[in-house]
Amino acid sequence: MRIMHTADWHIGKRLNAFDLQDDQAAVFERLVKVAQEQQVDAIMIAGDLYDRALPNETAVTMVNGMLHRLNRELGYPLLVISGNHDSAVRLGTGREWYDATQLYLNTELAQAFTPVELGDVQFFLLPYFEPVAARLYFHDDSLTNINKAMHRVAAALEEKFDPAKKHVLIAHFFAAGSKHSESETLVNVGGLDAVSVDDLQAFDYVALGHLHNRKALNEPKVQYSGSLLKYSVSEVTQEKGVYILDTDTMNRHFISLAPLHEVQQLTGSFKEFSDSDHFSAAERDAYTAITLTDVEVIPNVMASLRQVFPRIIELKREQHVQLETATQTNVKLGPMPLLADFYQQVTGSELTPEQETWAKAALAEASRSELGQE
Amino acid sequence: MRIMHTADWHIGKRLNAFDLQDDQAAVFERLVKVAQEQQVDAIMIAGDLYDRALPNETAVTMVNGMLHRLNRELGYPLLVISGNHDSAVRLGTGREWYDATQLYLNTELAQAFTPVELGDVQFFLLPYFEPVAARLYFHDDSLTNINKAMHRVAAALEEKFDPAKKHVLIAHFFAAGSKHSESETLVNVGGLDAVSVDDLQAFDYVALGHLHNRKALNEPKVQYSGSLLKYSVSEVTQEKGVYILDTDTMNRHFISLAPLHEVQQLTGSFKEFSDSDHFSAAERDAYTAITLTDVEVIPNVMASLRQVFPRIIELKREQHVQLETATQTNVKLGPMPLLADFYQQVTGSELTPEQETWAKAALAEASRSELGQE
Repeated sequence: MRIMHTADWHIGKRLNAFDLQDDQAAVFERLVKVAQEQQVDAIMIAGDLYDRALPNETAVTMVNGMLHRLNRELGYPLLVISGNHDSAVRLGTGREWYDATQLYLNTELAQAFTPVELGDVQFFLLPYFEPVAARLYFHDDSLTNINKAMHRVAAALEEKFDPAKKHVLIAHFFAAGSKHSESETLVNVGGLDAVSVDDLQAFDYVALGHLHNRKALNEPKVQYSGSLLKYSVSEVTQEKGVYILDTDTMNRHFISLAPLHEVQQLTGSFKEFSDSDHFSAAERDAYTAITLTDVEVIPNVMASLRQVFPRIIELKREQHVQLETATQTNVKLGPMPLLADFYQQVTGSELTPEQETWAKAALAEASRSELGQE
Repeated sequence: MRIMHTADWHIGKRLNAFDLQDDQAAVFERLVKVAQEQQVDAIMIAGDLYDRALPNETAVTMVNGMLHRLNRELGYPLLVISGNHDSAVRLGTGREWYDATQLYLNTELAQAFTPVELGDVQFFLLPYFEPVAARLYFHDDSLTNINKAMHRVAAALEEKFDPAKKHVLIAHFFAAGSKHSESETLVNVGGLDAVSVDDLQAFDYVALGHLHNRKALNEPKVQYSGSLLKYSVSEVTQEKGVYILDTDTMNRHFISLAPLHEVQQLTGSFKEFSDSDHFSAAERDAYTAITLTDVEVIPNVMASLRQVFPRIIELKREQHVQLETATQTNVKLGPMPLLADFYQQVTGSELTPEQETWAKAALAEASRSELGQE
């Protein structure tokens, strides 16, 4: 069988002031096209269908519509779990009716222990859960963190294994590298909130959601699909799309989905950004985080930049960035050296002797005033 | 067929500070018992399943659980519409899957024109809608109020009538009396927001939700079921329950549902209410609106009354009530007559000559101060 693996739709998400409804609708179209071109037999959606536990009605309409289209109109079996951004209760509405058309939706831990069988594969749909849910389910107070809880859950899932079948886990958590490999830092440092991939080795494939970077793990059988779109500036370099899993070989390949608008980060001078000829239409249309190299005050800077880039999601000065780092090391300096340092970082020049005299006088006056010696 | 008619569940509603979850769960049990005892063939739920468009997760769990129980566990066909308190989009989640088990749920006007057939009856499930929805659906800008819109909708529904069947409408709006009868005031005065029962005459039965008083209309074929519980002090005298409709004769009878706690309004003195022996356990357990006849200040009045009545939803003084009415007519009096009047109403006594002297002096001083003559 060929199974599509997608996750982290985050329908309803805004990118700063911008509603991503059109972008999400467009990438839904592309996802449908890929499913058809790749002739997939089913689709796994590994959590965070919604961006918020209380999605607005537009988001509800979009998710309901997409699930209906994939399952009822196009006939794909769907294997769906809730993520930490979803409300298990709200997303779970109607689940008892859905499996009649092979829409399998799990939103509670207890539901994970009944696998869904398609062809020669057992699919285990493990929704996002808190350690307390595992403590209650197993009556075991020792499951104080997700790593311990998942160790126990994995063992319980393995008990349901049909040895004649293959075993795929669909889950939504922060998985970190093996304790026995180079990447152990993540488990040990990131600590108790991460699940070790060691506990997932019994499965032939683990289709994960949660981390938006599909390359967050480098494991032979454990894979994040990554999010459907770039949902923050930190994701600008990440390719977004879906995985196609061949369950005969458990090989997978990634298919990227072109977004309606890119998300990009640009650094340059106000002059460069003001010249629309410097940029392609696609670049100008992108959700853009701009870092200005200019030092001087620019009147109406945002309004001016929006003439060229209507979708600015962030505007920073390069100097401010340096300043933020620099001040970390300067906390022990007195007011005058700090002021001189600040001036130098913001303007790139030293204080003149005359400016230094003025500044010292002002600081002395402020100090007297503060001590009530006026 | 025997069909139960219920409406206005308002799950998630609070009565002042009190969560009604236990009361609503208890009345659900009684409703189920009545359905079984009466051997009904289906259940009509005429809107306002939820109290709010954004119900909390507990409310969602309750409604989902009740629909599942009635339909999937007990096997009743359900005929459900959204009311003005429901979010059509949220309540409508999963509706395309539900009809596979005869859970028919309409939340959009356009869905009303496809009747549900059970036995020899066509059921028309018309959800609450705004006039703008009718204007868009019919491409008719003249439908500026619900009365005009409903006139048009009713005609369009009638076009779908199978003459060999009976016709039941399930709807959620404010229906008023006939224009041609004694009760015409309602239509003319309540005005444009009310639907005239004249437009509903083509149906053999109209099962309504919206008004909480089952006796709000006195029409042979048009019936409010009333709400499931008493949801305000104004409903204390209303009997709550469900109707059982016999579709062979279109006769209906009412079956009351005893609440877990009553809602009552009591008037008396603090001394009477402080004596728990005066009241039965059921009276003390009721959600109680108390009107005190006392005039004097009572320290810790609420805390004291709660010793006897733990579920006080309203506390008023009889004198205050009279005052509210009285002040309407006194707006033209000067400050001194108003003060004397106020004192008389609050205490039941006239000002003494000494008090009157003090009051006049205080008013004169306040007046000088106000005019800046101090």
